[in-house]
Amino acid sequence: MISYGLDVGGTKVLAVALDDRDLVVGEVRLPTPRPRPGEEPTATLVEMVSQAVALLAGRPSGAGADRLVPGEPLGVGLPGVADAHGRLTFAPNLPEAVGVDLAGALRRTGLRDVWVDNDATLATLAEARAGAARGVAEALMVTLGTGIGGGVVSDGRLRTGAQGFAAEVGHMVVDPDGPPCPCGRRGCWERFASGAGLLRLAGRAASSGRLTRVLGAAGGDMARVRGEDVGAAALAGDPEALAVLGELAEWVALGLANLAAVLDPALVVVGGGLAELGETLLGPTRRALVERLPGRGAWPGIGLVAARFGERAGAVGAAMAARRGGLR
Amino acid sequence: MISYGLDVGGTKVLAVALDDRDLVVGEVRLPTPRPRPGEEPTATLVEMVSQAVALLAGRPSGAGADRLVPGEPLGVGLPGVADAHGRLTFAPNLPEAVGVDLAGALRRTGLRDVWVDNDATLATLAEARAGAARGVAEALMVTLGTGIGGGVVSDGRLRTGAQGFAAEVGHMVVDPDGPPCPCGRRGCWERFASGAGLLRLAGRAASSGRLTRVLGAAGGDMARVRGEDVGAAALAGDPEALAVLGELAEWVALGLANLAAVLDPALVVVGGGLAELGETLLGPTRRALVERLPGRGAWPGIGLVAARFGERAGAVGAAMAARRGGLR
Repeated sequence: MISYGLDVGGTKVLAVALDDRDLVVGEVRLPTPRPRPGEEPTATLVEMVSQAVALLAGRPSGAGADRLVPGEPLGVGLPGVADAHGRLTFAPNLPEAVGVDLAGALRRTGLRDVWVDNDATLATLAEARAGAARGVAEALMVTLGTGIGGGVVSDGRLRTGAQGFAAEVGHMVVDPDGPPCPCGRRGCWERFASGAGLLRLAGRAASSGRLTRVLGAAGGDMARVRGEDVGAAALAGDPEALAVLGELAEWVALGLANLAAVLDPALVVVGGGLAELGETLLGPTRRALVERLPGRGAWPGIGLVAARFGERAGAVGAAMAARRGGLR
Repeated sequence: MISYGLDVGGTKVLAVALDDRDLVVGEVRLPTPRPRPGEEPTATLVEMVSQAVALLAGRPSGAGADRLVPGEPLGVGLPGVADAHGRLTFAPNLPEAVGVDLAGALRRTGLRDVWVDNDATLATLAEARAGAARGVAEALMVTLGTGIGGGVVSDGRLRTGAQGFAAEVGHMVVDPDGPPCPCGRRGCWERFASGAGLLRLAGRAASSGRLTRVLGAAGGDMARVRGEDVGAAALAGDPEALAVLGELAEWVALGLANLAAVLDPALVVVGGGLAELGETLLGPTRRALVERLPGRGAWPGIGLVAARFGERAGAVGAAMAARRGGLR
């Protein structure tokens, strides 16, 4: 039996087909659709889900929900806080989806095994059950992408808090005078340690005469530089891009040290798009984290590893949750 | 059977006698002793414990460990991170106690039921089992005193993390350029939202011509103003002191909002010396917290209450843990 999982981000959708042994046997990527004028956001999302599943299943003809097959488990991760019914209540990076009952809409197409949840919660499920945190009783996952999400495993179980709002770690304030955040406050960690934070650091480097090669490749126009360009230059060994990643690592470590002070995990798993930088980001982050832990030498070591499922973790976890009927 | 519990702070020791129904039937306060030149810190601590228990039990004669009775459970809370054996590994507010095996030393006097642990962990045990968080599955306790400690209850159990270091919430960095902390870093939450933070805010108010009555009562010498003086003036209705408490409430709320984003508790219990200010501090903190939660209106309400055991919570929890043989 194949299960399908989608991870809907602020800009792109990553969908996977998962077999019974939790192996990814298919993958597609689509741009995140925006509702057309007059279109209901629920219809936009259902059509997108249907299209992704049809592509994965090799059923590209037909339209809309006709392409969904009732017996196939289907999970969806959304970039925001989902209530107990899978309805988004807070989603600064996908505001049009707030209040949409996607799980209900998918069930009304005839699907039986549906699970809709926070994207980072599902990524953590994937890593805890079959990935880098498998068998680790006390673990923390952070997903560093456009924003920052997270998931907490304690005593071997995913902890979602009193209302399912736990592990919104990107919205820890780490500088009350920092840049404004779409959440309505200032200085949230995700302003500094995400893809957006990388671009901000790159912009500062460029305006002080550094990051010359990356900027040159973009015709001298900082507005055309993407986070991926800085990452690619760092992976290729550009010392100025590596220096920017070093600054990013300090911000990542600052937030991880805060989370360590609250949760004391044995292992931190890093997912999301920035995790694709691998040791180029994790190496300096690990060194910075040792310096930033409260009590320094007194603090036992914390493992820091990349997500086994990489940026697919959210989609894999969505498929798992749909098949298992929950976050077990 | 009476159990004894001590909460050793950076400046004072609070000791209680607890009966079988968890009622406090005796209380004494002592200054925290400092080792005399050439004296072993372990001996200083054992002598202090013995003295406190003798006073509570009405056995003031004799000296040293002779005053401890083997069958009586005895628990001690220390202001720092304790390892699995109750040995402090990190204690910026009681540095001389780092490395001391107090539990071992007390057992060597013949005591059988001994428990030594982090003070805030023990305070959380008291509130979770018999206090303000009784029956609450997802709860957070913060103790606002000289520093800030904390405890996390999830699924009804105290969570101490992979190495017993969890809930060191005072050492979340909330301003990387903030004032230096004894932990070796800058801008930890406990620099802003503790008794030390209150004094800092009071000093700023005084130097800008506010807080005139409190300063006048100290002969115009800010160095003679204590946090308690500002608190007492606020409780008496002094508007300038109330304004300083309002600033303190903003800092308390900032950290609580960060913790809510990570843990999503249904209830926050506030203990420690500052909790004695009651609604004079909790009222403005509750209002500030609503504004500071990520997602504001989208976030379900969080209860915020004072510890039922007040500043005795740590000592009560120490006695409970000793009698129960652990954090159950």
